[in-house]
Amino acid sequence: MRIVSADTGGALLDDGYNPIGLIATAAVLVEKPYKTAKMSIVKYADPFSYDLSGRQAIRDEVLLAMKLAKKVKPDVIHLDSTLRGIPLRQLDDPTIDALRISDRGKAIWHELSKDLQPLAKRFWSETGIEILAIGKESVAVRIAEIYAGLYSTKWGIEYALKEGFARIGLPRYMKVEVREGMLWGESLDPKEGGLYGEIPLDVEGFEYQIYPNPIARTFMVFEVKKE
Amino acid sequence: MRIVSADTGGALLDDGYNPIGLIATAAVLVEKPYKTAKMSIVKYADPFSYDLSGRQAIRDEVLLAMKLAKKVKPDVIHLDSTLRGIPLRQLDDPTIDALRISDRGKAIWHELSKDLQPLAKRFWSETGIEILAIGKESVAVRIAEIYAGLYSTKWGIEYALKEGFARIGLPRYMKVEVREGMLWGESLDPKEGGLYGEIPLDVEGFEYQIYPNPIARTFMVFEVKKE
Amino acid sequence: MRIVSADTGGALLDDGYNPIGLIATAAVLVEKPYKTAKMSIVKYADPFSYDLSGRQAIRDEVLLAMKLAKKVKPDVIHLDSTLRGIPLRQLDDPTIDALRISDRGKAIWHELSKDLQPLAKRFWSETGIEILAIGKESVAVRIAEIYAGLYSTKWGIEYALKEGFARIGLPRYMKVEVREGMLWGESLDPKEGGLYGEIPLDVEGFEYQIYPNPIARTFMVFEVKKE
Repeated sequence: MRIVSADTGGALLDDGYNPIGLIATAAVLVEKPYKTAKMSIVKYADPFSYDLSGRQAIRDEVLLAMKLAKKVKPDVIHLDSTLRGIPLRQLDDPTIDALRISDRGKAIWHELSKDLQPLAKRFWSETGIEILAIGKESVAVRIAEIYAGLYSTKWGIEYALKEGFARIGLPRYMKVEVREGMLWGESLDPKEGGLYGEIPLDVEGFEYQIYPNPIARTFMVFEVKKE
Repeated sequence: MRIVSADTGGALLDDGYNPIGLIATAAVLVEKPYKTAKMSIVKYADPFSYDLSGRQAIRDEVLLAMKLAKKVKPDVIHLDSTLRGIPLRQLDDPTIDALRISDRGKAIWHELSKDLQPLAKRFWSETGIEILAIGKESVAVRIAEIYAGLYSTKWGIEYALKEGFARIGLPRYMKVEVREGMLWGESLDPKEGGLYGEIPLDVEGFEYQIYPNPIARTFMVFEVKKE
Repeated sequence: MRIVSADTGGALLDDGYNPIGLIATAAVLVEKPYKTAKMSIVKYADPFSYDLSGRQAIRDEVLLAMKLAKKVKPDVIHLDSTLRGIPLRQLDDPTIDALRISDRGKAIWHELSKDLQPLAKRFWSETGIEILAIGKESVAVRIAEIYAGLYSTKWGIEYALKEGFARIGLPRYMKVEVREGMLWGESLDPKEGGLYGEIPLDVEGFEYQIYPNPIARTFMVFEVKKE
């Protein structure tokens, strides 16, 4: 099974470890044995003006996943929304009302589906590829999350080289390491069976530190400053 | 404390990683220090004609646990149903109605208790051994789950030697390894404190691979083919 | 950020692994990188006459945290009650009624807040330090829990040296080790990013064993006897 997935994660943090805004949406191609990405692409957001309601993230994820899917022709796209694995092209208003999610979640999806549902329908009729709202059950979604953390870390390093300093909140229970010519990231949850990722990194002249976010248990902070 | 427990797990998977049916019910005897089984027995099901509602699994577990208990005389039997640790012999209709479980769960238990409750009552009056519906709180239940995964893996290997190939979905966050003359299995959750199991295995002529189930996060797949 | 936190944990267990009563409340000072305590103090309870409703624990925690805070002047106090991070000094009756917690939780807080709320208000006006009901989101609360486990273990060793034997239930997924001149403890959950603690220990003449509590998955037992 060849799966494309996308997820948004990694936040610029203020002094009190609260998120200012999200940084990166990553789309990944995941193939058997489903432990890392065969290919990844990224779309950066501006964390200083970010809509934290979730609308922006979902829209970015659908569009970026479709972009990668057009190139690599996967069997399926996994979306990071846990709606019983329903195909996005079937997500019309009555279907949304019947979901067992919060009223706020329904309001967001009523708004989002206006353009995303016809988009998914056209994409499916042209390519045969379903976009499934499978969410946290998908290993591919988790790998996309790890890549979003890697790209956010890279953004943080480049930001610090310009501005002197950055404090990045990584996605849930993952860590990153700067290695020879690359950034390495892996899940801290051994129950996931060894999920990891890596992206190229060819900059120098910075110091970094990883430690637990004191007000968000199981989330790590990547802190970087220019040397 | 000497505990007998039973659990059902391990599923034959189709090409899309969906379960076709469950494979094995294992009963185990667990003694201090409660990290593995001192003894285990198995009852295999036919995964190609399996009732996935849960009824068959619970019935198989009660009967297999009682079979092992008659032999090893434990202090207590732990059942994999999380009903506040209530004794099965007390599970009559008014008690079931008063439980905080789903209506579907109640319907299943009303049906199951018809023969299991008198059975448990007779077993208790003859042996003094309680059958407790303690469920996921019990370490013995988790060890039984690991053994169900081991026996399912063994079933998969033997199936592949006859039919050429098998894909087994293991119980939650556990892995298995083929070692000299045995199958080894262990929990992937370090919070559980190092739970593991092993069963004899004396067949050869197969290759295997373990990897995450892409549509069921924290569940691993054991895939085996004839050499 | 310099954080003081307090938590109660570690229970004396009976033969059936059920808690008789809690043993220790620990208060800790946690500083960046938020992996262990820079300083810790303890208040022991009498496990043989302990109010397991939670009232005693919360009261002990607030008082012990304030005691340590007076000495070390932290930026904030984190309390192990998950009430959306609300400041304790604002926890009056209408605020408690508006919380999304159980009726039993509300009753307990209505009673507790009678003296704790004015106390927190005075403490805040004198020191500027907020006492936040942040609960399980706080890494400092988890470190306090690990220290409560360490002090409970120490209590158990001293009890066994007098009485011959003790069986201690540790706080959730942590283990302890007796090392040269100290007790070492660490979280068994790697998702937490490597939280640990240590306290001095200068007694000898005992044997110990650590193993999973068979009726409380992910909780370990520390068993100690006089040599």
